[in-house]
Amino acid sequence: MFLHKSILIHDVHVQNPDPVFAEKLLEQYGGATGELSAALTYLTQSYHTDNPGIRDMLQDIATEELGHLEVVALLIEQHTNKASANLQNKAYQSTLFAIRGPGPHLVDSKGLSWDGRYVNEGGHVVRDLRANIAAEAGALATYEQLIAMSTDDGTREALRHLATREVSHTHMFMEALKSLNALDQPLFGDLKPDETVNLYFNLSSGPGADERGPWNREPTFQYIADPLQHEMQQHGGRSKASNEMTPPGAMPDRNPATNR
Amino acid sequence: MFLHKSILIHDVHVQNPDPVFAEKLLEQYGGATGELSAALTYLTQSYHTDNPGIRDMLQDIATEELGHLEVVALLIEQHTNKASANLQNKAYQSTLFAIRGPGPHLVDSKGLSWDGRYVNEGGHVVRDLRANIAAEAGALATYEQLIAMSTDDGTREALRHLATREVSHTHMFMEALKSLNALDQPLFGDLKPDETVNLYFNLSSGPGADERGPWNREPTFQYIADPLQHEMQQHGGRSKASNEMTPPGAMPDRNPATNR
Amino acid sequence: MFLHKSILIHDVHVQNPDPVFAEKLLEQYGGATGELSAALTYLTQSYHTDNPGIRDMLQDIATEELGHLEVVALLIEQHTNKASANLQNKAYQSTLFAIRGPGPHLVDSKGLSWDGRYVNEGGHVVRDLRANIAAEAGALATYEQLIAMSTDDGTREALRHLATREVSHTHMFMEALKSLNALDQPLFGDLKPDETVNLYFNLSSGPGADERGPWNREPTFQYIADPLQHEMQQHGGRSKASNEMTPPGAMPDRNPATNR
Amino acid sequence: MFLHKSILIHDVHVQNPDPVFAEKLLEQYGGATGELSAALTYLTQSYHTDNPGIRDMLQDIATEELGHLEVVALLIEQHTNKASANLQNKAYQSTLFAIRGPGPHLVDSKGLSWDGRYVNEGGHVVRDLRANIAAEAGALATYEQLIAMSTDDGTREALRHLATREVSHTHMFMEALKSLNALDQPLFGDLKPDETVNLYFNLSSGPGADERGPWNREPTFQYIADPLQHEMQQHGGRSKASNEMTPPGAMPDRNPATNR
Amino acid sequence: MFLHKSILIHDVHVQNPDPVFAEKLLEQYGGATGELSAALTYLTQSYHTDNPGIRDMLQDIATEELGHLEVVALLIEQHTNKASANLQNKAYQSTLFAIRGPGPHLVDSKGLSWDGRYVNEGGHVVRDLRANIAAEAGALATYEQLIAMSTDDGTREALRHLATREVSHTHMFMEALKSLNALDQPLFGDLKPDETVNLYFNLSSGPGADERGPWNREPTFQYIADPLQHEMQQHGGRSKASNEMTPPGAMPDRNPATNR
Amino acid sequence: MFLHKSILIHDVHVQNPDPVFAEKLLEQYGGATGELSAALTYLTQSYHTDNPGIRDMLQDIATEELGHLEVVALLIEQHTNKASANLQNKAYQSTLFAIRGPGPHLVDSKGLSWDGRYVNEGGHVVRDLRANIAAEAGALATYEQLIAMSTDDGTREALRHLATREVSHTHMFMEALKSLNALDQPLFGDLKPDETVNLYFNLSSGPGADERGPWNREPTFQYIADPLQHEMQQHGGRSKASNEMTPPGAMPDRNPATNR
Repeated sequence: MFLHKSILIHDVHVQNPDPVFAEKLLEQYGGATGELSAALTYLTQSYHTDNPGIRDMLQDIATEELGHLEVVALLIEQHTNKASANLQNKAYQSTLFAIRGPGPHLVDSKGLSWDGRYVNEGGHVVRDLRANIAAEAGALATYEQLIAMSTDDGTREALRHLATREVSHTHMFMEALKSLNALDQPLFGDLKPDETVNLYFNLSSGPGADERGPWNREPTFQYIADPLQHEMQQHGGRSKASNEMTPPGAMPDRNPATNR
Repeated sequence: MFLHKSILIHDVHVQNPDPVFAEKLLEQYGGATGELSAALTYLTQSYHTDNPGIRDMLQDIATEELGHLEVVALLIEQHTNKASANLQNKAYQSTLFAIRGPGPHLVDSKGLSWDGRYVNEGGHVVRDLRANIAAEAGALATYEQLIAMSTDDGTREALRHLATREVSHTHMFMEALKSLNALDQPLFGDLKPDETVNLYFNLSSGPGADERGPWNREPTFQYIADPLQHEMQQHGGRSKASNEMTPPGAMPDRNPATNR
Repeated sequence: MFLHKSILIHDVHVQNPDPVFAEKLLEQYGGATGELSAALTYLTQSYHTDNPGIRDMLQDIATEELGHLEVVALLIEQHTNKASANLQNKAYQSTLFAIRGPGPHLVDSKGLSWDGRYVNEGGHVVRDLRANIAAEAGALATYEQLIAMSTDDGTREALRHLATREVSHTHMFMEALKSLNALDQPLFGDLKPDETVNLYFNLSSGPGADERGPWNREPTFQYIADPLQHEMQQHGGRSKASNEMTPPGAMPDRNPATNR
Repeated sequence: MFLHKSILIHDVHVQNPDPVFAEKLLEQYGGATGELSAALTYLTQSYHTDNPGIRDMLQDIATEELGHLEVVALLIEQHTNKASANLQNKAYQSTLFAIRGPGPHLVDSKGLSWDGRYVNEGGHVVRDLRANIAAEAGALATYEQLIAMSTDDGTREALRHLATREVSHTHMFMEALKSLNALDQPLFGDLKPDETVNLYFNLSSGPGADERGPWNREPTFQYIADPLQHEMQQHGGRSKASNEMTPPGAMPDRNPATNR
Repeated sequence: MFLHKSILIHDVHVQNPDPVFAEKLLEQYGGATGELSAALTYLTQSYHTDNPGIRDMLQDIATEELGHLEVVALLIEQHTNKASANLQNKAYQSTLFAIRGPGPHLVDSKGLSWDGRYVNEGGHVVRDLRANIAAEAGALATYEQLIAMSTDDGTREALRHLATREVSHTHMFMEALKSLNALDQPLFGDLKPDETVNLYFNLSSGPGADERGPWNREPTFQYIADPLQHEMQQHGGRSKASNEMTPPGAMPDRNPATNR
Repeated sequence: MFLHKSILIHDVHVQNPDPVFAEKLLEQYGGATGELSAALTYLTQSYHTDNPGIRDMLQDIATEELGHLEVVALLIEQHTNKASANLQNKAYQSTLFAIRGPGPHLVDSKGLSWDGRYVNEGGHVVRDLRANIAAEAGALATYEQLIAMSTDDGTREALRHLATREVSHTHMFMEALKSLNALDQPLFGDLKPDETVNLYFNLSSGPGADERGPWNREPTFQYIADPLQHEMQQHGGRSKASNEMTPPGAMPDRNPATNR
């Protein structure tokens, strides 16, 4: 069960309320990279793993993210709600709060409703932890952008805390993946890979599009410079074995019935 | 520019067409973890990075995923289209193909349209690469489940290739992250973290909910067993400094105006 | 801030796990009438009212609904997760859990993602409380249907508790509306109504479509049996005043430029 | 069957066309609280009830709402369409109408498409009528905000009529609920509630979060000040009966297998 | 304004109610190709054209489609509502109606809510009429499939009427386009086309992928067999003019800064 | 399989970058009428037809549209990315790019994610080709509006090419429909129409709402001036046959049990 305490997980003291900035803050209340996405992702994932330690970690962090959601809510409330003549003029700049009323709403900075598709989970703990590391990177990027756009010290200070904790959670998820030996190596799950597992297909080609790097370099990977030619040779070999003839100069049609 | 060649990136030979299984295959044509999600994610990300090597890698892999999308399309086409009396009876089991017609559609296994929110990108190369590793894990998990559910050898063989390549791409993205020193350490971007960066809050507590592991263990992390108490102490210190009185036994209200 | 306790707000003891029934249960995890909709609605609403009592009530109930979300999650987990040969056979009947994995997911019984549009709030406490009464009625209706479809005593007992609490919350919201004198009378807010406020327009007419009841009966309402005639008479009066001519027998065109 | 008459249910005379205000008006054409939501909700509900009077009332009001939809359409048309040099300059301020063209579109003020999820119905007449009262409150709130933002007398006059009718409909729905004895008491439907039906759980606690009011006051409700303690006592009682031991000082784990 | 008459635009006499077939019928109540999509598309379009005849035609047909929506609603109502022991058993096969209750709902056959994106309009009468012809073709295709799947004579007879009228409307829209000289020739609107207007790019190539037909045949079109070569030649010419050097054998990089 | 070449299908040279205009350009990257909608529609349709020529044409054009998507991507990239002090100031005007980062994103000009519902296909080649003609008209209309709003010569020149090609594709689709004899006549598919196929129902009536034109003129169509009367007469005939009495002056209730 959950309990709620009337003490914030981090203080919120907005000095210069700004409804237009509050629209941007909605990104972290009802947006894709926001605190609700994080809380519901980790909570849902926690019911999928039998590993008691990771289950507990996911519920600890999910609960913290609910507390962060509340911090974002209060930031938005203070940016839209504080009574002052100055604010009234600014309020007219925000259609969203004029129509929906002040305070947080479950939408992003463009007014788009939060969507369950933001929750990235699928019943496999390694997949889920990797998704979490990606999600935290997204949340951090949004916070950095919000901090850069904010001119209010109180707001920036609170955002800095929320951003800090995204880094902390990333660290925790990485440690959990390390404990499963899954951080720096692809896992095959139940898969018996086929012979192409180390091939790199240079399918985008031309000047400036044939770059080399650790992601396509021997000996880890075998670089296939001309994948079309490679496919045709593979096919040619098999064709001969099955005694089919390919007319000279023609591209062999491996699958004539289906890919016209 | 793109070119299309009438040669498949991998053969498709369905032996026992099954429209009900084809519904499940839609998950990888128009579903969240499918090939379209991958292709459009990497293509969109490629326009966001100035790193020419990573830009090229993203376009190579995006182009390969378009070829995979075609392979999935032909699997679905063959599972729903092949003329046979046997198939006609099976076809009645699939409302989806009965109403929409045979062949691939841009929906998932439940008939839900593909959605741009599946594309996880945000203008920062580290975030994007991390999202890709997570996405490939999701795609792999779905392929494993599809392989486990399939009884058709031709289908399983094609799915095994597609699954293999997800592992290959994971490996490439990990190498790219390593080249940016971003695989195994959280990055702070422009963020100056606050003093809580190494704290672990045990917000989910009680028997079986106080597990310890590398993700909350000293010296990497400082374990806060009772975060509510921790917050109140933090607050108590600041309160004294500002000469406010907290009644004995009461929980200090750090933010009385806003969090009633 | 929120805390999570490893004690359920109500016991969950599924005796006969059934993945197909678990699909239906998803309606209350990730569906429109589910516990998440309730929790996020009341939490978001709580930031919109200055009335400290109603704010507290909304946060009390929102927190309870989070605990209910957890109960539903565990019902789904037990219905999909318990190891038994019998369950394995049943599992094949659920495409949803086969593809997504066991346990709860943020979708409804048809696999549609939860959507922020389910959250009904708008910055006015009377509107919000009325929406809540409606929402609880929807949740209750779904629980009744789930109970009717369930054959597992443990499941039915837990669902009965969750349904009971929806009634309890309805009662609380009604008492709150009564305390605002808003339960049984329409409120006008800032509106100065026009002269039509008590008219009932019989716009659907013909045999069986001219029923009378307290909702259109004098003296509360004035029944306009032929609204088209009524509109034309209203218009005729105004037309004369403005000295426009209407050809005899023709329907006056009140707005010739726009409503052709 | 439906008929359409070239006479408006209320006049529309916009004097000072303003495309930016027209964007806000879209909220009532294609938005959540708009006339389309109302019309389709009542029409769909009308097919669910066997009560001929309520069925007729729902169809009368649904038909009126279609007429209101037309009034909103013409308001938007006149605000975006009237030829004048002045309007041309203003038009550039509205990306929405610049790209989509003038006149109404099935989107809300942020450009988000109307969504069937706005239709709140579920096959039970009491639930449906309660939802309608809530929906009318939302529509009224939006109209009040639009009237407050409008500076055009013709627009305000038309909006005042539309807002008035929402109050009228609220009144009608309340009378219908009264005729079913369902306005001021929670109904239990087929539910046999459990023993918690009158408990109020104070799950949000701390200073300012323990407010009392009619919604949690004796004798109607029993106030549970410490729900965690309450749950543990309930559990303790049952535990003893079943002869399980709880270690002193520990929180009993009611559901050890599932809620770690 | 709209009026509703208690007379159906076509009779509905379901003889063998079948809730599973009713799920399929939802496709035409709340689905993409359904009557609601048609009604709202034509109604919205009618406010966009200044041509009084076409405006009237759109409102005539929109009003008819509302009557068709009612026919579909009653088909669904009768398929799910008629009291009979036989129906009770069938009802358990439909999760959708079990959970949502009998009668029509604003969803398609997979339970997905109707979406404003189904409304295809954009402020230009030619575009709108073309979209309508396409939409009617979609509606007809769905009706044909429903008729093929139906075994109930009363249902088939009603569906045949609805399908017939889609053909009628197609004919009307074609006549309207002919009256605008826009049926069989592409229109350029305000566009001054560039020199490529008659080129056909053979971008999909290989065996079976170089088909010729009226859509790429001279003299109407100029067939570009190798578009990549064509682009490079175009570029080569311009490059020389601007005195840039292209290394021999290399593919000229037309846009080096942006398309790596 | 697909190949990507580092040569654009049309040059992109933005001279005056403008992030606010780039928001509008998103309409053609991730919007309803954009290049992605076109590419995925034609690709998906290509798997539904057995006509090899039309299948090839659809894949040729789909591949071209992918190249157009890339052109739009680079327009957006150049409008948001070019380093200049001037751009920095303009950038603050675009919340969308400030929060999401520069470059293309899979959303429309209002920030709404691309949606699979934009893909209009359904397994019948005539329906599909008609949908394509409509879609191209929508794309052209959007390009015209973008060209009208653009003040940058390089941007306008690229947009003119993209718009030109939409006209070209329209022409090709029309030729394909002509080759199937389906351009200018409604097709009946498997439908045996009923006797109403040539009736025009004047359901919207009154001054200015009874226009006549080729779409409702004899001999092609029979104009039913008063459809309600027509329905009642039809019904009267049948009623007599079945010996039911209609009270004088009353509207006959054709379906008393269902349409009250």
